[in-house]
Amino acid sequence: MEVSPGPGAAQTAEGPFIQTLAGQRAGRPPLWLMRQAGRYLPEYREIRGKAQSFLDFCFNPQLATEATLQPIRRFGFDAAILFSDILVVPYALGQEVSFESGEGPSLAPLQTAHDLARLAARLDLGRLAPVFETVERVRASLPRATALIGFCGAPWTVASYMIAGRATSDQHPARLFAYREPELLQRLIDLLVEASVDYLDRQFEAGADAVQIFDSWAGALPAAELARWGLAPVTRLIRDLRLRRPGARIIVFSRVVSSQLLELAGTCGADAIGLDTIVDPDWAAGAVQPIAPVQGNLDPLLLLAGGRGLDTVVDRILAAFAGGPHIFNLGHGILPDTPVENVQQLVRRVRGSG
Amino acid sequence: MEVSPGPGAAQTAEGPFIQTLAGQRAGRPPLWLMRQAGRYLPEYREIRGKAQSFLDFCFNPQLATEATLQPIRRFGFDAAILFSDILVVPYALGQEVSFESGEGPSLAPLQTAHDLARLAARLDLGRLAPVFETVERVRASLPRATALIGFCGAPWTVASYMIAGRATSDQHPARLFAYREPELLQRLIDLLVEASVDYLDRQFEAGADAVQIFDSWAGALPAAELARWGLAPVTRLIRDLRLRRPGARIIVFSRVVSSQLLELAGTCGADAIGLDTIVDPDWAAGAVQPIAPVQGNLDPLLLLAGGRGLDTVVDRILAAFAGGPHIFNLGHGILPDTPVENVQQLVRRVRGSG
Repeated sequence: MEVSPGPGAAQTAEGPFIQTLAGQRAGRPPLWLMRQAGRYLPEYREIRGKAQSFLDFCFNPQLATEATLQPIRRFGFDAAILFSDILVVPYALGQEVSFESGEGPSLAPLQTAHDLARLAARLDLGRLAPVFETVERVRASLPRATALIGFCGAPWTVASYMIAGRATSDQHPARLFAYREPELLQRLIDLLVEASVDYLDRQFEAGADAVQIFDSWAGALPAAELARWGLAPVTRLIRDLRLRRPGARIIVFSRVVSSQLLELAGTCGADAIGLDTIVDPDWAAGAVQPIAPVQGNLDPLLLLAGGRGLDTVVDRILAAFAGGPHIFNLGHGILPDTPVENVQQLVRRVRGSG
Repeated sequence: MEVSPGPGAAQTAEGPFIQTLAGQRAGRPPLWLMRQAGRYLPEYREIRGKAQSFLDFCFNPQLATEATLQPIRRFGFDAAILFSDILVVPYALGQEVSFESGEGPSLAPLQTAHDLARLAARLDLGRLAPVFETVERVRASLPRATALIGFCGAPWTVASYMIAGRATSDQHPARLFAYREPELLQRLIDLLVEASVDYLDRQFEAGADAVQIFDSWAGALPAAELARWGLAPVTRLIRDLRLRRPGARIIVFSRVVSSQLLELAGTCGADAIGLDTIVDPDWAAGAVQPIAPVQGNLDPLLLLAGGRGLDTVVDRILAAFAGGPHIFNLGHGILPDTPVENVQQLVRRVRGSG
């Protein structure tokens, strides 16, 4: 599709994505994909080299705007998602953050009260100005029917990177920190709740139509720890954001198990609940969808594999959620090796034309 | 406690562990810990060097017997678990398996029909003779009240190592193989079901009082894939084993999410269901325990951290499951850095003496 910037551009969206967040269901579900802007796209790989580091790229409004719009141009998704990273929040709190190519993020690990005291008391919004400029530019370039989604990491997920200093498979460093230094962690989580409210509020001000909170690493926590470090901070974040910005549209994506997903859906106050790859669509249609609109949950590995199996499972997800509000998405981010043709196949299938 | 081998030794167990598997509840729950024999014990580290490779150690009946008995001597657990590894099954099917120190297992990855055809058509029980000898020796050395648990990996979990050739955090290689080569995977799973039945049957014959099937890596599978590659093969394994050995006592430990845990508990036919760290004990007491005795589920990281928080959570787990049959255990294997004093603290707490 053509993305048409300029004087006639919309300042807010009002398409099927927004209607679905409002609990409406009409025809085929709207569609976007987590990490839809990024390395699997040849046009992204072409511009990636124009900034030195990944953070430089995120903080370059021209490049970040282009990366955000690329998947909209190619696939006509119903929503664009800001090209950025959840670790810009620790960065704007004063923690050293870098991305080594092919190795993921690297932070100066936060391990003591002294490390915590060195962080800023509030988010430095000035350091994030290029992000808000990107949001403005993207919104001005999008058609009215296409929503723009801003985002942040949930406090626990961001804290797990801040404590470990890197991505970890089971969040051992952060979970051990939670057992050994619960008061310190509580202070860090409180700081992140406030910083996230400031950050999302400013994204809305710049033109975001909705935001998604990613609690990608909540799933490794035992239930009592999850309640304290995962569900409670996210619930507080949403409440505080809505106090400042009533009607803010909010999606929560949390990789938690089914009994906790029910509690999350029932209490956090989000407009929609993102479903992880492992959630059973039939179960979620009966248990979660009656509480809140759902988003998800195709396995990114199946999108990578493609073939007839992809169509079968897409159809199964569409059918499971056909009775209520549903945003079609993956159950986790798209993988860099995913063939573009497979995404095209998915788009056709969801739209009923393939 | 003293472990007393010799002429008066029991040939089968009949203590609280066995009674709990039979659905009885009497007083404090029996206790053992996944990976209770191993690196966190100084006496294990002392004998580890007596065999060159980890597999050599597993296949040395004298050393493996000693490693199995060490935690019983030190802590008086209600059950011993055979010191071995789930990857002896691929080894006895002819796949190359080695353990590089500090790097985990390394296998020649199975990726084609040709690779599959090179495996033996049935498990070579001769190659596993030292394992069965270990079972005999351990059983002869244990008091009558202490059970001996044999084990194997579930077909999906073992297949995921055979396909990837190594441990993987999200089982990407095996999951991708499942999408691309479902017929090949089905043949591999069928082979593993049969091999596991042979293997567990022989462990019972050698003197095991119960067995545990570890489906540690089922949790990354989407629901439909889990049903096919996780739940169905485990259910078939249990059924076929019971056809050959009626009354065989079987525990299934599967890291699956709660809605699937219910299905597993209701259909697989195991005597008890092992609960992963992330399962909410209060939820499981209401949902799973009425269906089958439960085992679990203290976070190994909390055992490593120790302190008063450990007592608090142990008490919470004891209280949650106090109304029915419960075997106290971790929700995953004990971590090598765990202080022995913390295990002692746990044992006292579960026994009501600390």
